[in-house]
Amino acid sequence: MTANKILFIVLDGISDRPSPALGGLTPLAAARKPVLDRLAKEGICGIMDTIAAGVRPGSDTAHLALLGYDPYKYYTGRGPLECEGTGIHMEPGMIGFRCNYATISREGIITDRRAGRIHDTAALSMALTEGVDLSGYGVEFAFRSGAGHRAALALRGEGLGHCVSSNDPKKDGVFPLAVKPLKPVAADEKTAVVCNEFIRQSTGILYDHPLNKERVKNGLNPANIVLMRGAGEMGHFEPFSIRYGISGSVISAASLISGIGSALGLTRVPVTGITGSQDSNITGKIAAAITELKTRDFVLVNIKGADESGHDGLAEQKRNFIEKTDTALAPLLDLPDCIIVICADHSTPCTIKDHSADPVPVLIHGDGVRIDDVAGFDEYLCAGGGLNRITGAALLPTALDLINKAHKFGA
Amino acid sequence: MTANKILFIVLDGISDRPSPALGGLTPLAAARKPVLDRLAKEGICGIMDTIAAGVRPGSDTAHLALLGYDPYKYYTGRGPLECEGTGIHMEPGMIGFRCNYATISREGIITDRRAGRIHDTAALSMALTEGVDLSGYGVEFAFRSGAGHRAALALRGEGLGHCVSSNDPKKDGVFPLAVKPLKPVAADEKTAVVCNEFIRQSTGILYDHPLNKERVKNGLNPANIVLMRGAGEMGHFEPFSIRYGISGSVISAASLISGIGSALGLTRVPVTGITGSQDSNITGKIAAAITELKTRDFVLVNIKGADESGHDGLAEQKRNFIEKTDTALAPLLDLPDCIIVICADHSTPCTIKDHSADPVPVLIHGDGVRIDDVAGFDEYLCAGGGLNRITGAALLPTALDLINKAHKFGA
Repeated sequence: MTANKILFIVLDGISDRPSPALGGLTPLAAARKPVLDRLAKEGICGIMDTIAAGVRPGSDTAHLALLGYDPYKYYTGRGPLECEGTGIHMEPGMIGFRCNYATISREGIITDRRAGRIHDTAALSMALTEGVDLSGYGVEFAFRSGAGHRAALALRGEGLGHCVSSNDPKKDGVFPLAVKPLKPVAADEKTAVVCNEFIRQSTGILYDHPLNKERVKNGLNPANIVLMRGAGEMGHFEPFSIRYGISGSVISAASLISGIGSALGLTRVPVTGITGSQDSNITGKIAAAITELKTRDFVLVNIKGADESGHDGLAEQKRNFIEKTDTALAPLLDLPDCIIVICADHSTPCTIKDHSADPVPVLIHGDGVRIDDVAGFDEYLCAGGGLNRITGAALLPTALDLINKAHKFGA
Repeated sequence: MTANKILFIVLDGISDRPSPALGGLTPLAAARKPVLDRLAKEGICGIMDTIAAGVRPGSDTAHLALLGYDPYKYYTGRGPLECEGTGIHMEPGMIGFRCNYATISREGIITDRRAGRIHDTAALSMALTEGVDLSGYGVEFAFRSGAGHRAALALRGEGLGHCVSSNDPKKDGVFPLAVKPLKPVAADEKTAVVCNEFIRQSTGILYDHPLNKERVKNGLNPANIVLMRGAGEMGHFEPFSIRYGISGSVISAASLISGIGSALGLTRVPVTGITGSQDSNITGKIAAAITELKTRDFVLVNIKGADESGHDGLAEQKRNFIEKTDTALAPLLDLPDCIIVICADHSTPCTIKDHSADPVPVLIHGDGVRIDDVAGFDEYLCAGGGLNRITGAALLPTALDLINKAHKFGA
């Protein structure tokens, strides 16, 4: 009778505030979503403060919280997690950065902070990996391409700090900034020097790279400078499998979420056609999750499109994406032996185009839950559910309890 | 669309337990209160543990919690906050006391702990300020009158402790006590010596003061001794404006609440005719708050009368005061661009004539809230609201999130 698997479906940024474009409803309340409503009806529902009431979560801190890793203890900046997301294996103490390929003119002016939204930079990253030399500073590095114009840089070496500024001027038409230590500390000063040297050498390599010459010939902006930000020191993450005694996988188009999974030792499952956007292959994600559950105890699926619509302020698009997602979730209605948890990581109200601290709806479905009388899955109905209001930290332990993997405290 | 102001209306001690005098209803549930009910209907409601479930808050610790200052970290006793309330500017490390003017007989017996409820003591406090000399101990002091027979004393000097007892015998007909150190520590011993010297000198000055001679001639009890209690060392309060990035004001007849506001750097707004009692000019308070919101981001209004009725055990009086308050709140129904938060700081049940740990009702009204189906503002209806059950610490962050002044944790 007892389920022995856990599936977390994180509908990124799906919850919202009342939307004038939808007659005062939220996109979730306005959407036709028979699958989510049926799961809510058959399960127990509630609202959830992913981190704490009144705290606006990032996607990174929220996912750490949902996976039971207190972000106030474990979060050390986005850089190291983005590095993991690109496939760089980060060890504790390494310094990680999020990077963009950008375009710089002969005069040294940033003319396009996204290098014409270039999307195949693997050859450039390979050239930097082979060409840049930081050994004079006793520093090793790894540089990998991410999605589109994105990339990540990791540094390893003695005496490197992580409190340094960015070289990104945040707008076009100006010179890039020098990376600077944020405090007058030798370790941060060393990292700043190393970063500036990386930028100097990499710009030289990129400027004359054949791929960039080809782009210029075709009237495209070349990717000839690296902008870096989000510096952080990789922390020590107790592996998920040791912490909970179960195996797990992560399915996400967003490299930040994949990176969090990697940092915890979750297996990353590639799925064709996933984009983190409206056109993503959600059906493929769900199919992959169901396959993965045959050999894994736990799978987390992140579905990003609703968050994107929220950031763009498009309530109708968000509602439509929710309806598309709902259709893709249909196979979950017949998933045996599994505790299904569906929630958001944070709200992304279309009215503010950013994350908010509004609690998110959550449902838990599967053997053993105390089924409440909530008849649908939205911010309002879930607030009346049997879970009442919980924190993200409580979610995975609750699911582990339902698959009998919780440990008794006391006798 | 998004509101950009926050108004906190704290209905001091308004919530209660079932009252036999009201057919088993609470005063709030029994009251006719169309304004509060409409705000509840148009907003989102819940119940709130101001500090934590099961903790009986004082008004001071509750207000600290509501303002986002953890009372377990910031509260160092009532004395320093009462000093701020009388207008003494307390610096971190200063020792503050609540004081009463009282009457002592020629034989040294306390005959009236409130000195005939004397109410204009400014001349006496001035005489003490000019006449008492503690410089032999290396100690400076400030002494200011509060409302009625109340006053406050602040000490500043090297090596002063705050763990000392009171000289108040808590009943008439006995000798005043000596102030004693609560631990055998040099700093507390010094403070005790200084306090006893202050009492000795001040009694001498007060005994022969013309105002007291006049009172005796008129058959009134003279204010010829100072009773002091509530010793505490002033802590360091990060200013409200720096902590939250917004400006703020406080409107309260209670000097303790004004003092908390002052300690946090909130502007105190005087209003004519406010008494902290049944006859207070609540209409004036609301008018002043609305005016204040034109130039401030945040205003806290404390309305005290219901708490007084609770302490006196007068359920019908409490219900009547709630009805008077409701009428005075009518202008809030048309307040634009503002998040209105209405709550109590604690319950003051008429049946126990003291504060209780029962959660308080809370409503949040304004653009962006997820309006629930709660149809009125009382302890019972709010318990079914969309906020569910929150803590006081979550309240201001939730309001800041609604005016887009929350900071994202993570990316």
